[in-house]
Amino acid sequence: MTTAPHVVSTGVDLLAQAIEDQAAPVSRVDWRPPMADTEDDLATLALDPLRPDANAAALERMLDVQAILVDVLPASEAVGLERGDFLHAGPPISWERASGPLRGALMGGAVLEGLVDTPDQAAALLEGGLHVRLEPCHHRRTVGPMAGVVTPSMWMFVLEDPATGDRTHCTLNEGLGKVLRYGAYSPEVLTRLRWMNDVLGPLLQRAVRAAPPVDVTAILGQMLQMGDEAHNRNRAGTLMLLRDLAPAMVTSADGAGGPTRADVAEALRFVGANDHFFLNLAMPACKLALDAARDIPGSTMVVAMARNGTDFGIQVSGTGDTWFTGPAQVADGLYLGDYGPDDANPDIGDSAITETAGLGGFAMATAPAIVRFVGGSVPDALATTRRMREITVGENLRWSVPVLEFAGVPTGIDVTRVCRTGILPQINTGMAGKVAGVGQVGAGLVNPPADIFPSALAGLAQLSRARAATAPA
Amino acid sequence: MTTAPHVVSTGVDLLAQAIEDQAAPVSRVDWRPPMADTEDDLATLALDPLRPDANAAALERMLDVQAILVDVLPASEAVGLERGDFLHAGPPISWERASGPLRGALMGGAVLEGLVDTPDQAAALLEGGLHVRLEPCHHRRTVGPMAGVVTPSMWMFVLEDPATGDRTHCTLNEGLGKVLRYGAYSPEVLTRLRWMNDVLGPLLQRAVRAAPPVDVTAILGQMLQMGDEAHNRNRAGTLMLLRDLAPAMVTSADGAGGPTRADVAEALRFVGANDHFFLNLAMPACKLALDAARDIPGSTMVVAMARNGTDFGIQVSGTGDTWFTGPAQVADGLYLGDYGPDDANPDIGDSAITETAGLGGFAMATAPAIVRFVGGSVPDALATTRRMREITVGENLRWSVPVLEFAGVPTGIDVTRVCRTGILPQINTGMAGKVAGVGQVGAGLVNPPADIFPSALAGLAQLSRARAATAPA
Repeated sequence: MTTAPHVVSTGVDLLAQAIEDQAAPVSRVDWRPPMADTEDDLATLALDPLRPDANAAALERMLDVQAILVDVLPASEAVGLERGDFLHAGPPISWERASGPLRGALMGGAVLEGLVDTPDQAAALLEGGLHVRLEPCHHRRTVGPMAGVVTPSMWMFVLEDPATGDRTHCTLNEGLGKVLRYGAYSPEVLTRLRWMNDVLGPLLQRAVRAAPPVDVTAILGQMLQMGDEAHNRNRAGTLMLLRDLAPAMVTSADGAGGPTRADVAEALRFVGANDHFFLNLAMPACKLALDAARDIPGSTMVVAMARNGTDFGIQVSGTGDTWFTGPAQVADGLYLGDYGPDDANPDIGDSAITETAGLGGFAMATAPAIVRFVGGSVPDALATTRRMREITVGENLRWSVPVLEFAGVPTGIDVTRVCRTGILPQINTGMAGKVAGVGQVGAGLVNPPADIFPSALAGLAQLSRARAATAPA
Repeated sequence: MTTAPHVVSTGVDLLAQAIEDQAAPVSRVDWRPPMADTEDDLATLALDPLRPDANAAALERMLDVQAILVDVLPASEAVGLERGDFLHAGPPISWERASGPLRGALMGGAVLEGLVDTPDQAAALLEGGLHVRLEPCHHRRTVGPMAGVVTPSMWMFVLEDPATGDRTHCTLNEGLGKVLRYGAYSPEVLTRLRWMNDVLGPLLQRAVRAAPPVDVTAILGQMLQMGDEAHNRNRAGTLMLLRDLAPAMVTSADGAGGPTRADVAEALRFVGANDHFFLNLAMPACKLALDAARDIPGSTMVVAMARNGTDFGIQVSGTGDTWFTGPAQVADGLYLGDYGPDDANPDIGDSAITETAGLGGFAMATAPAIVRFVGGSVPDALATTRRMREITVGENLRWSVPVLEFAGVPTGIDVTRVCRTGILPQINTGMAGKVAGVGQVGAGLVNPPADIFPSALAGLAQLSRARAATAPA
C-alpha cells in the first residue's frame, strides 16, 4: 500500500537531494522572494479590508455558475456582428501590430464574408481599415481559440447560466492543422468553413433545440475523470457531446427541407474525428463562470487571461475592464512534422480562459497523457497542479482530480499570490505558425509575461489607497 | 517538481512507519513466504527447462493479437447454439449447484426462448434437465459477464484476429440494475432483451458491416488514457464505439425495411446511457488474446479466470483445458440503495478475463475514479497496479498507464509467482444479489480463492516431472 504524503523542500537543495538519494519522492517548491518592487503594493493589499471577502465572493460567484448549451446561432444573431465586423482573441490590437496568424485568420474571414475575393485583396482591405472593425471577443461575451476570429456568418455555441440568464459564445471548432484559427486561409480552409456555415451549424441548432439540455459544467467534471484537462485534451468531452446530441441529430434528418441522413452522418464523422471539438464549449463555460466574478471592488482575482499573438493581457475583478498587457511568449513544446521553434508565433488565443478557471495547465495532473502532445513529463504534470494551488484563491470540488484523491482543481488566480511567490500561471497551448497561412506547427507549455502581474497589483493597490483615503476616519 | 521513486519496505514495519512519520510515501510490499506446501512444486518448476521460453512465448502470442469487431450475429449463428442450449459464466456447473443469480438468468433465458411461459415453469424445466443443456461460455470461444447466460436468440459481438482468423464472442450489454446477467428476470428485463433481439442486434449488424473496422485492442489502449480500466469503467470505450458506429447507424436507417430513424435514435440513446456497454467488447478482446496463449507445454501463465457464482476456476496454458476450482468469494465494496453484504452472491462472471489480460483490477492505477464505484482508496488503486507486477510475466506497452509514466499494464499471471509471493490477483467486480430475480446489489473488490493456485502449481509440476522422466538422459 502506498501513502500519499511526500517531502516538501524549499531553499537549499541539499536536503531534497539527500531524500531523493534514499528513493523517496520530493516536491521542490519553487520558492522565490516576491517579484521586484511589489513590496509596497503587497503591503497595501495585505491591509485592504475588502480583499478577503471580495475574493471569497469572486470565487463563490464563479463556482455557482452552471453553463448550459442552449442554442447555436450565427454570430450576426448571437452577438450582433455586422458586415465588416471582426472579433479576435486577446486584448485590443490593430492590424499594424497583429501577428501573422491573426492576420491570416482575418484575411480568410474577409474572403468567407465575401468582402473581397482573394486573401491578397483582404490584406489591402484590412490594412486600409476603412470598412472593417476589429474588436476583442471578450468585449462581446465571446471567447475565441487561437486567432479567435469571428465573422457575422460563422455559427456559435450559445451558453447560458439559468440562474441569471447570462450568456457567452464561441464559434464551432474546425479541427487541427490547416484551419483558420491557426492563421490558415487556403481554399480547403474556406471550403470547410462554408460547410460548417451551411450544414453543421444549422444541424447543430436543430439538435440542440430538440435534445435535453447539455450541461457543459457537468461534462467538464466528467472529463477530469477521463483524462481531459479541457484545453489541449477534450477527447472525452467531445465524445460526451456526440452522445448527448446524436439522437436529436438523427431525428432532425426529416427529409423535409432539413438535413439529409448523409449530412447527419458527415456531421457525426466530422465531430467524432476532432478531439478538440469540445474546447469551444469548455472555453465559453469558463468565461461564463469568470464573468460572474467581475467587478467586485477589492478582489485581486484574475477573471481573464487572453493573447492576441502579440500581447498577453489579463483582466482582474477589482480593476474592471482594464487590460494589463505585456509581450506574449513563445511556448516550449513539441512540433508537428519538420516545424521547429523558429516557425512558432508567440502565444495566441482566448483559450487561457481555461487556466483562468482552473482547467488546462492547472488541471494537468488529471491528464498525464497530455505530455505526449504538449511536452514535459508526467511528474511535472502532477507537480504543476499542486504548484498552482500556491497562487489560487481556492479549489473547485465540482471539478475534482481523482489521482490527487479527488482534490478540486486550483481555481481563481490571485494577483497578490503570484507577486508574492513569483510563481506564474502555467498554460498549455497550441502553437500557430508565425507566418500567415501556415496553420498549426505544434503544442507546448507557456507562461504569461511576468511583468503584467506587478502592473495589475499596482492598479489594485492604487484603488485600495484611494478607498482608504476617502474612508471615514 | 516531484520525482517518482518511493521507498519500498518489506518485513518489519518499523522502517516504513519511520519514513511515513517524515512525510515520505512508502509502498509496503505485502511480502509473505511461499504458499503452504508449494516448496517442492516450486523447486520442480524452477528447474523446468521449458518454462522460461514457454512463458515468453505465451506473453508474446497474447500481445500479438489484434481484436477487430467484424460482425454481430445471433448466438445460433455465431456459436451454433440450438434450442435448449444455455451458455453460462465460469467453470462447468449443474443447476443443482447453481447460485441464485445464475438460476435467475437461466430462468429468464428459458422464457426469452419460449421454452416455457413463466419463470416458475423455467425452474421446473431446468431442474428436470431433460430438454436443456448447460455449458460454460469459455467452451464455445465466448465470455459472459456476471451470470453470462447466452441463449440462441441473443445477438453477439464477433471479434476476430485478422492474422489467424480466430474468433471470440460476447452478448450485447443490457445496462445495470435489474438485468438478466445479474439474475433478474422480471417483465421489464425480458422486454428489454426482446428489443435488443429485434432492433438493436440487427441494427448493430448493419452498422458494423458498413463501418470501417472497429479495432477493439486499439480502443482499449485509448481507454487507459481516459480513466477506464475496462472492467468496471468502460465509459470512454462506450463513447468511442458510439463515435465509430454512429455514422453507419444513421445511414442504415434507409426506410426500406431496415431500421427507422426512431430506431437509430433509440439505439444511440440506449448505448449512450450505458457506461458499461463496451465491457462486452473488452471481454472477448481479452479472451481472443489469451486464447492465443493456450496449450503451450511448460507455460505457467493463467489463460482464464472465471466464476459461475459458486466456483472460481482458472485455466493455465501448460495444463490445457483443466479447470482448477475453489469456492468463489464475496466481494468487499459499495452497495446500491439499502443492500448490504448479506444480500450479495459470491463472485460471478467471466469478466475476470480482463484481469487475466492485465486490465480491470490490474489497471486500476489508470482509473482512480473507480474507487467511487468499487470502494478502496486512490493510493490503493495506484499500489494495486504496482503490486500486480510482482505476479505477472511482463507488461503490455500497447496498454500503457500514463500516470505511471506510461508503464504497460502488468500482464500474464504466473502461477509460480503467485505461489511464491502469496500475492493474489486483484479483481474488481459487480455484485449480484444472491436471490434469483434481484439483480445488481453493488460493486467491489475480490480475490480468487488462494488454494486454486497451489492446485494448478501441482498440476504443472506433475507434467514437468513426467516430461523429465521421459526425457533422454
